Amino acid sequence: MPDENIDLLSARSTRRSFLTRLSALGLVIPGVGSALASCSRGEPNESDSARRGAGQGAIAANQQPQAGARGVRNPDSRLDTLHHAEHGTTTSATGAAGPFQRFDATAPPPAKTRTQQIHWRAQAVPLRISPEIVVAAWTFEGNIPGPTLRCRVGDTIEFTLTNEHEVPHSMDFHAAQIDPKTAFRSVLKGQSVSYTFSPRYAGAFAYHCGSSPVLMHIGSGMIGAIIVDPPAPLAPAKEFVLVQNEFYLGDAVNGVQPFDYTKMLGTLPDYVAFNGRPGQYQTEPIRVKRGDRVRFYVVDVGPTVPCAFHVVGEQFDTVYIGSPPGNAIHGVQTFNVAAGGGMIFELVANVAGEFPFVNHGFGHGQKGAIGLLVVEE
Amino acid sequence: MPDENIDLLSARSTRRSFLTRLSALGLVIPGVGSALASCSRGEPNESDSARRGAGQGAIAANQQPQAGARGVRNPDSRLDTLHHAEHGTTTSATGAAGPFQRFDATAPPPAKTRTQQIHWRAQAVPLRISPEIVVAAWTFEGNIPGPTLRCRVGDTIEFTLTNEHEVPHSMDFHAAQIDPKTAFRSVLKGQSVSYTFSPRYAGAFAYHCGSSPVLMHIGSGMIGAIIVDPPAPLAPAKEFVLVQNEFYLGDAVNGVQPFDYTKMLGTLPDYVAFNGRPGQYQTEPIRVKRGDRVRFYVVDVGPTVPCAFHVVGEQFDTVYIGSPPGNAIHGVQTFNVAAGGGMIFELVANVAGEFPFVNHGFGHGQKGAIGLLVVEE
Amino acid sequence: MPDENIDLLSARSTRRSFLTRLSALGLVIPGVGSALASCSRGEPNESDSARRGAGQGAIAANQQPQAGARGVRNPDSRLDTLHHAEHGTTTSATGAAGPFQRFDATAPPPAKTRTQQIHWRAQAVPLRISPEIVVAAWTFEGNIPGPTLRCRVGDTIEFTLTNEHEVPHSMDFHAAQIDPKTAFRSVLKGQSVSYTFSPRYAGAFAYHCGSSPVLMHIGSGMIGAIIVDPPAPLAPAKEFVLVQNEFYLGDAVNGVQPFDYTKMLGTLPDYVAFNGRPGQYQTEPIRVKRGDRVRFYVVDVGPTVPCAFHVVGEQFDTVYIGSPPGNAIHGVQTFNVAAGGGMIFELVANVAGEFPFVNHGFGHGQKGAIGLLVVEE
Repeated sequence: MPDENIDLLSARSTRRSFLTRLSALGLVIPGVGSALASCSRGEPNESDSARRGAGQGAIAANQQPQAGARGVRNPDSRLDTLHHAEHGTTTSATGAAGPFQRFDATAPPPAKTRTQQIHWRAQAVPLRISPEIVVAAWTFEGNIPGPTLRCRVGDTIEFTLTNEHEVPHSMDFHAAQIDPKTAFRSVLKGQSVSYTFSPRYAGAFAYHCGSSPVLMHIGSGMIGAIIVDPPAPLAPAKEFVLVQNEFYLGDAVNGVQPFDYTKMLGTLPDYVAFNGRPGQYQTEPIRVKRGDRVRFYVVDVGPTVPCAFHVVGEQFDTVYIGSPPGNAIHGVQTFNVAAGGGMIFELVANVAGEFPFVNHGFGHGQKGAIGLLVVEE
Repeated sequence: MPDENIDLLSARSTRRSFLTRLSALGLVIPGVGSALASCSRGEPNESDSARRGAGQGAIAANQQPQAGARGVRNPDSRLDTLHHAEHGTTTSATGAAGPFQRFDATAPPPAKTRTQQIHWRAQAVPLRISPEIVVAAWTFEGNIPGPTLRCRVGDTIEFTLTNEHEVPHSMDFHAAQIDPKTAFRSVLKGQSVSYTFSPRYAGAFAYHCGSSPVLMHIGSGMIGAIIVDPPAPLAPAKEFVLVQNEFYLGDAVNGVQPFDYTKMLGTLPDYVAFNGRPGQYQTEPIRVKRGDRVRFYVVDVGPTVPCAFHVVGEQFDTVYIGSPPGNAIHGVQTFNVAAGGGMIFELVANVAGEFPFVNHGFGHGQKGAIGLLVVEE
Repeated sequence: MPDENIDLLSARSTRRSFLTRLSALGLVIPGVGSALASCSRGEPNESDSARRGAGQGAIAANQQPQAGARGVRNPDSRLDTLHHAEHGTTTSATGAAGPFQRFDATAPPPAKTRTQQIHWRAQAVPLRISPEIVVAAWTFEGNIPGPTLRCRVGDTIEFTLTNEHEVPHSMDFHAAQIDPKTAFRSVLKGQSVSYTFSPRYAGAFAYHCGSSPVLMHIGSGMIGAIIVDPPAPLAPAKEFVLVQNEFYLGDAVNGVQPFDYTKMLGTLPDYVAFNGRPGQYQTEPIRVKRGDRVRFYVVDVGPTVPCAFHVVGEQFDTVYIGSPPGNAIHGVQTFNVAAGGGMIFELVANVAGEFPFVNHGFGHGQKGAIGLLVVEE
């Protein structure tokens, strides 16, 4: 169906396949998910009608979760305030992408030297963002997000990007004050670009490919974070980096879903994730000890959706909305990080338990920007 | 049409029914509203075509308001800067929901005791959110929003939720520092959950049901505000609570519109409201006296849309973007409250008159997040 | 097709025509743009299929830019981090609108007198917002945005609006503390409204027509900025005013595209622009000298989309999120200006080069909210 490929935002086809994919990820409620999944194969048949009947029942009762298929929800489950994420054995999308790997959110330690040589490659790779989903990623160093870089105000970063992909790419560090025309220029396959910069301001900064159209390059995965420490370090803490990005995907070709520029322009993502995998920190939480100060470097690379960052059961003692250690506000439940921005969120984990961290803009957050912070005794 | 029920985001059906409903609420301009309403019944007929002609005329001239049907607008009308809200007698949606009732925006007084016992019920009720519209609400205590709770930093809140609904529910207070796994756990029908918390930070906080999927439970009406006063009270003021929420609705069944999870995921609401009723404070304004300090506790429960809060004809002397009495900025026309966040907006009403307060993100605000502050001599 | 006119958000027709128009503006990548453009004329034909084949190839490889038609991208091009804007000779939309004219972003100088008499007209005009696109604008003084007004805290502005358009209009200055019922009232064609105000707070404020429905009047172009200087002037700087607005357009009638209220309610704009022309400052950049302090007065009139303001290759030394000279944060990469809000962004241009300034919410920014700041030696 050539028309299907082009008319990507057609509500009918897109919404069905979107919900089917959500269902595969466990991001929709069972009753609705199965009803909708049944609609993705084209014309209705008898079996579809039967399932759809169940779906209609759900809709009539506000589409409430149907207990049947997976049994009554356990109200004591630690995941009960999250979305369902009971990933089963996958039979699809095997191959080059390899097994699913969690992205470690732990922030790298402060830099030990005042000068760093960084050499990264722009690479197109198939990347498994969930047990079921492989995307045709454009990346720095083969991952979404790319490596987290950490340095200190005034340090020297000697950076080189080598492009191993047919498409021209570049690197835009938000922590650099530098001429983009030269430093952030695109290079063709096999070429490299090098530049040196010295961050003037502390904070949680984004980096991304800045090649035209930027929306496409950010949206396809060429994103990451650079943490810049102030001259005097912030208070000791357990530190984590959360890079929020959106996924806008086309139908799978040989088990790999391409990124879809038209859907990026439509601004309704299929998934929203912290560190490139929807819901990854539900099944494998972030862990700290009671009494720890916890510091989240939250970078929203977008391309479009803000991150209304919130930790369920906690408030932030401090949010640095500008460069730390100044520019702080206190006693905050939720604050919006703009697309292309970064902020630092701190709390002291005085209470043990299991605390979901979310994008509280739940129309987006429910699509995967939900994780779990476990505070152990 | 089973297909219609499932394919809820199909542009054609949804947009038409959406606009028809907007029209019923008086939220669209007359010429366009009637033309669009005529399209909601299926295939066009002669009468439809005639009306549609008028609509096309409006479109050709930028869809400007047609003076005809309701007469020339009165440019001196106090509602002229608002949307039209000339609710007529309704003939639909009678019955269990009872008559339309305005939600009193007045903030409850500061707590008189340092310990409060609160016992609320999770209930599903038909709720009339406008003279014409009844929704199948999931609620705390039968209303959207639920009751406003008010206490002081360090107070003790002994809270119990009893679930009277078939769907598991829970309670997540953003002002509580507590283990969500235990305190915010879901309970089945007939069960209760109790916990005690003591707010550490002052501010305007959200509460909501945190049961999975959270988007569905917030989106269906299980929302409200908890105000936490600082140890030393803020300056005396006329205080109001505005909880912004979005409505995503399906077609009415027996006069009651269910909430629609698929539309929630689509993030384009049918209505946006302060305190659960689109446009309620246009017809029954909030009233203060000239010279009063006016304090708005603005809580945006979303689920998704930020609130760009603004008062027409005024500027905010103070916006507390974090916990009061610190974390204040001054001389502000508009500030975004994130979904799942809350901020406190203050002005001194030195000028008498009629001041619309709005979500200035008007693509959303025009759908009902508009009210009127009357400053009397 | 009457149905087409009404069913404006039908995904199929709207998305195609949307992308066709984007393509005309040079805002989409060549391979995809041509494939999509070919779909806007109705049923596919052989030529379409051939082009679509190219498009599919692009999609299979993540819709990457096809080098063919316009040659290999020059990675050293100063526009490489921007979107393509190679406007050719236009053959459409000639006539009353006149030639395309850049909107000068230079802020007007500080007011020399403490009292200003301002007399503006509300006018409907065809306005060329790009070499190819003419819109049926509603304006103040014939332009989008209207003139920038500048004054000082405590100054007296004696304002008169005369309406020369069939639709009732009004003026809402966000810098005025005044009764909207009287001052911001609508006037019919041939009538005038006058009022006097004295700004209490410094900052970058929006103004707009406040007539009902406000969404339509803001969305059709009746917008602009008023800069209010603090009593003691801010540090000397090269100053620019950027008013971000969105365009929601219908199909052209006699070469002129009307604004589309239904699409405004849909909140997915066709274009997003600084000062009313998508991408205008790419081809004709804003220019300063190395060492200059650069001050952007960023006003987001919306109607809906926030502006995640960012300068590529720079950080903001100061962002005034409230009234200057207080309410400042420092060391900021990106900050969201709410719809209906304004903030002041400052940087010292210590590095020469070519720095794109953008709405970093790129799903929107890519539609035209991209310009170029050239820092000359």
